[in-house]
Amino acid sequence: MTIGVFAGSFDPFTFGHSSIIHDATKFCDQVVIAIGVNSNKNPLFSLEERISFIKEATKDFKDNIVIGQFSGLLVDYVAGLKPIKNPTKLLIRGVRSTADFEYEANLSLINKKLNPSIDTILLISDPDCAIISSSMVKEVASYGHDVRSFVYPTIAKALAEKFKTQQPS
Amino acid sequence: MTIGVFAGSFDPFTFGHSSIIHDATKFCDQVVIAIGVNSNKNPLFSLEERISFIKEATKDFKDNIVIGQFSGLLVDYVAGLKPIKNPTKLLIRGVRSTADFEYEANLSLINKKLNPSIDTILLISDPDCAIISSSMVKEVASYGHDVRSFVYPTIAKALAEKFKTQQPS
Amino acid sequence: MTIGVFAGSFDPFTFGHSSIIHDATKFCDQVVIAIGVNSNKNPLFSLEERISFIKEATKDFKDNIVIGQFSGLLVDYVAGLKPIKNPTKLLIRGVRSTADFEYEANLSLINKKLNPSIDTILLISDPDCAIISSSMVKEVASYGHDVRSFVYPTIAKALAEKFKTQQPS
Amino acid sequence: MTIGVFAGSFDPFTFGHSSIIHDATKFCDQVVIAIGVNSNKNPLFSLEERISFIKEATKDFKDNIVIGQFSGLLVDYVAGLKPIKNPTKLLIRGVRSTADFEYEANLSLINKKLNPSIDTILLISDPDCAIISSSMVKEVASYGHDVRSFVYPTIAKALAEKFKTQQPS
Amino acid sequence: MTIGVFAGSFDPFTFGHSSIIHDATKFCDQVVIAIGVNSNKNPLFSLEERISFIKEATKDFKDNIVIGQFSGLLVDYVAGLKPIKNPTKLLIRGVRSTADFEYEANLSLINKKLNPSIDTILLISDPDCAIISSSMVKEVASYGHDVRSFVYPTIAKALAEKFKTQQPS
Amino acid sequence: MTIGVFAGSFDPFTFGHSSIIHDATKFCDQVVIAIGVNSNKNPLFSLEERISFIKEATKDFKDNIVIGQFSGLLVDYVAGLKPIKNPTKLLIRGVRSTADFEYEANLSLINKKLNPSIDTILLISDPDCAIISSSMVKEVASYGHDVRSFVYPTIAKALAEKFKTQQPS
Repeated sequence: MTIGVFAGSFDPFTFGHSSIIHDATKFCDQVVIAIGVNSNKNPLFSLEERISFIKEATKDFKDNIVIGQFSGLLVDYVAGLKPIKNPTKLLIRGVRSTADFEYEANLSLINKKLNPSIDTILLISDPDCAIISSSMVKEVASYGHDVRSFVYPTIAKALAEKFKTQQPS
Repeated sequence: MTIGVFAGSFDPFTFGHSSIIHDATKFCDQVVIAIGVNSNKNPLFSLEERISFIKEATKDFKDNIVIGQFSGLLVDYVAGLKPIKNPTKLLIRGVRSTADFEYEANLSLINKKLNPSIDTILLISDPDCAIISSSMVKEVASYGHDVRSFVYPTIAKALAEKFKTQQPS
Repeated sequence: MTIGVFAGSFDPFTFGHSSIIHDATKFCDQVVIAIGVNSNKNPLFSLEERISFIKEATKDFKDNIVIGQFSGLLVDYVAGLKPIKNPTKLLIRGVRSTADFEYEANLSLINKKLNPSIDTILLISDPDCAIISSSMVKEVASYGHDVRSFVYPTIAKALAEKFKTQQPS
Repeated sequence: MTIGVFAGSFDPFTFGHSSIIHDATKFCDQVVIAIGVNSNKNPLFSLEERISFIKEATKDFKDNIVIGQFSGLLVDYVAGLKPIKNPTKLLIRGVRSTADFEYEANLSLINKKLNPSIDTILLISDPDCAIISSSMVKEVASYGHDVRSFVYPTIAKALAEKFKTQQPS
Repeated sequence: MTIGVFAGSFDPFTFGHSSIIHDATKFCDQVVIAIGVNSNKNPLFSLEERISFIKEATKDFKDNIVIGQFSGLLVDYVAGLKPIKNPTKLLIRGVRSTADFEYEANLSLINKKLNPSIDTILLISDPDCAIISSSMVKEVASYGHDVRSFVYPTIAKALAEKFKTQQPS
Repeated sequence: MTIGVFAGSFDPFTFGHSSIIHDATKFCDQVVIAIGVNSNKNPLFSLEERISFIKEATKDFKDNIVIGQFSGLLVDYVAGLKPIKNPTKLLIRGVRSTADFEYEANLSLINKKLNPSIDTILLISDPDCAIISSSMVKEVASYGHDVRSFVYPTIAKALAEKFKTQQPS
């Protein structure tokens, strides 16, 4: 049994995230979407909002997705996941650029050092999604731009409300 | 069911290859080692030798490895693999550097365009294996260097014989 | 007056080429498509075929495109272009990756050294076109794949004929 | 008509900036130097000082430069520029390194998504200017170093005064 | 006489640092370990602690190491080093990745501009050390992980005490 | 005693080579310029010509340069250098770009594996020299361009004669 863990802040969830998760559901028996809850970060959306967005966005995906949350180091969270059978645990990471790649390659080696039983695999972002990041979406939305090319309509609407700008019509 | 395909010339098989395959056997139900047989390449080792090296090198691995051969485009070979159940088919690639990454990211997008049902995942080479390539091993061995840091002893011995240099003692 | 020169082998012309040229026609007064004719290269398509493909592909573009041919160094060809008024001459290059970028940045500095009056500008390839290269298209077509995602239908048909594979239906 | 927009904080204007602008004046009918005025940034020089530095530095350039200011997203500012005839609008960016390139390529794709009528072109920094950034100049000047290799004499003098260090003699 | 200067915060000293210094002691007549003391940085370990860690870690190295401290620009500190004979002064930098390389190449050119008599040489990190950074070690230790793969035992113990986590047994 | 070995084909010697060697003579007790003599390469200039060019180009450098030649693996040549005292042996490499860096980093790790007593250090090319390569110089000279920005006058003259083009006046 293979458990793939895809971690992030998801503040908010984007088409970039859903593209990676969609691919992971095909070759993992279970995909855990692990929402990072870091006390000294100040997210735009609450944990509840973020969970709700992810549920909505993935409702038509294969039925092997679980949503979790973690603080601290991701490897410790993954080590603590308690499935029935001894699974293979994979960290799933999306890579958009060579800068991303160097960062992720380094992180995967650190994680392997901290816990040799946890492997990392990299998925290459779809070219149309490679420009999307949560922080870019928030900045662009804060100036009133329509962000429905980057996130699901519900999230675009929520962003417009947060920034008190006009909702996309 | 997930079938991971790891393709190459394997002329010869190195510790870099075995490290990637070892990881792939953990999260793939089946790993196909696909040996490229390209008429206008002139390999040092025959197909039979290469198969024999791979069998020897992976004999203690999980028992889900199959050795195949292909010419032409890899996606066509993968599309033609006929398993019992409809599997998820993954191309498995090892990445050693940012130059590797750009090449592989590009290749994965071409392959996805040619056959949208075939995904590619990247595994990051172990730092100790990142310097190893079959062509480097052949060049170094041709000058009589001991290459047992890079390949299995049987292969090191075969290389020494090919190059008529002294066998590692 | 600004003359933009876009040089290549165009063997054959792809959607990647047309995307760059389309952008260049918007800010250059004249765009010269300069076909490299290098005696020790063995192109798949004759110069006449390549010119005919480019004419067909750009027939609906802005009417400021000229097709030329050159051998030797591009800067010498560009220096020899004889327009009526003293124009600004720009080399137009498309960039798809960081490897491309380093190569092009280096080339632009060499060209500037050889002829300080010729500047180079880089245009970033559309993500959908970034995977396309003439050599990839030829290889894929040689195995009978439909390449109409990469080149114009006329060219796809010509490729299929060259490789005596079935024409896309 | 081609309008090139070169945006930045210009805090302060450097030889790197002037090299890019000098090239842009050759192939753009008009070059807009757009000074970013971001309320939560704390510039060393006031808007008036920065405008005055740019005017002084470009006084011998071709007479097609306009200085503007913007807050918010650059694409919105560019969209709002109201010239007499419908111009082609280009974002002009200087690139110094592969890290710069990845950032700029990504930004250009986001900007194209937000406003498809605005293209981006990249100019490669002159090697002598590639090390120059406004923040480096400020740091070096704050320790009393002569920065006249990086900025115009007037600006070097103003930096020395700001940092109450000895003026270059 | 060649003086090599290896500068950093060393907060704390890691196996990555000691690997570079060990190499430098072989070809430099004297190696100065220059501890950056920057008033607006808030180090985890005091200057005294950092000096003590470095002394302990390098006690078996060649006896040509001197520990110094500096604030301000490194080139000014190096210029001010007063050896008996006119030495060649080298900045020694370890490089772990292409991102590191671009940063270091740029820095070396700035430093050369500020003081043409000071050259920079780059040493390539050992693959096993390439993942190690002081900040990574601190983060990992703060969650109670054993960091003796990255730093000397004394430092690992000190980190555990700082973070009031259990000492490695 | 430190021996720095700078290897290449030097076909022909360029300002890029001399810049690196000039720096190396400052911190190495002896610099060996090792000319690679590879039977299946077909150099433009004979070994004698190349030696003569290097002697001429470095005649005003510090008097610690030795010219050697090697075939086979560089590490084997370096291991066989027989100085009076046990020296530290360094491979000296110039790096011009991130692509260069990845290649050189990999090579240095292979060489370290083959002979752990041989370290590699990287020197960053002067920006004005970073575009220069022997093959570029040959191509440009073959079209009759003046290459005295890239190589010494004697070599520029010899190139012009080889290519039967007009000598630079």
